[in-house]
Amino acid sequence: MNLKAKSKIWIETEKGILMGEGRFRLLKELDQTKSLNKASKNLNMSYNKAWKLLKDMNANAPKPISINQSGGKDGGGTELTDYALFLINAFEDLNKKCWDMLDLEIQKFDL
Amino acid sequence: MNLKAKSKIWIETEKGILMGEGRFRLLKELDQTKSLNKASKNLNMSYNKAWKLLKDMNANAPKPISINQSGGKDGGGTELTDYALFLINAFEDLNKKCWDMLDLEIQKFDL
Repeated sequence: MNLKAKSKIWIETEKGILMGEGRFRLLKELDQTKSLNKASKNLNMSYNKAWKLLKDMNANAPKPISINQSGGKDGGGTELTDYALFLINAFEDLNKKCWDMLDLEIQKFDL
Repeated sequence: MNLKAKSKIWIETEKGILMGEGRFRLLKELDQTKSLNKASKNLNMSYNKAWKLLKDMNANAPKPISINQSGGKDGGGTELTDYALFLINAFEDLNKKCWDMLDLEIQKFDL
């Protein structure tokens, strides 16, 4: 029988959750759209929930995650920091390492 | 800042979930108590939920997980198969490998 080991990972600081599946998707959308409104719509997430997630990440992170741009013809937007982009890549990398390891290890067991 | 990467893993067959955190704890308690009633009480889980979890595991697994012992002065009990014991160890092993890997990898990032 074909067995598959799956995982969900997340990253915490002393203050709370910094990164997880939902936060990761939100940051990816924010990187694309530069707008919390558009990002939340694309994820079928309420604006309120997306706003709270981002606020929580900024509160828990050692460095800022996002910068609010005010003004301009679109009435401002949300810009990710370099730190947030680094975090996106780190989370993807950790996830891939975890999945690869589990794929390899599960084969060793005759389950 | 001290960052920690955490994970939850589970094992699936083509039929559905075979093993996860809750199922693992149930099997460990069953191994100790040989009783679904005692095991569910020790886990603060309803007997009905424990029974459904065990039934689902037996349905999804390639080999039987448990055997119902009828009769005797305690009115029967639930005995784990060698396969279930093997599964407990495999799940513990996979979890430990995952945690160790994440502990190591998270240090590599200057997050």
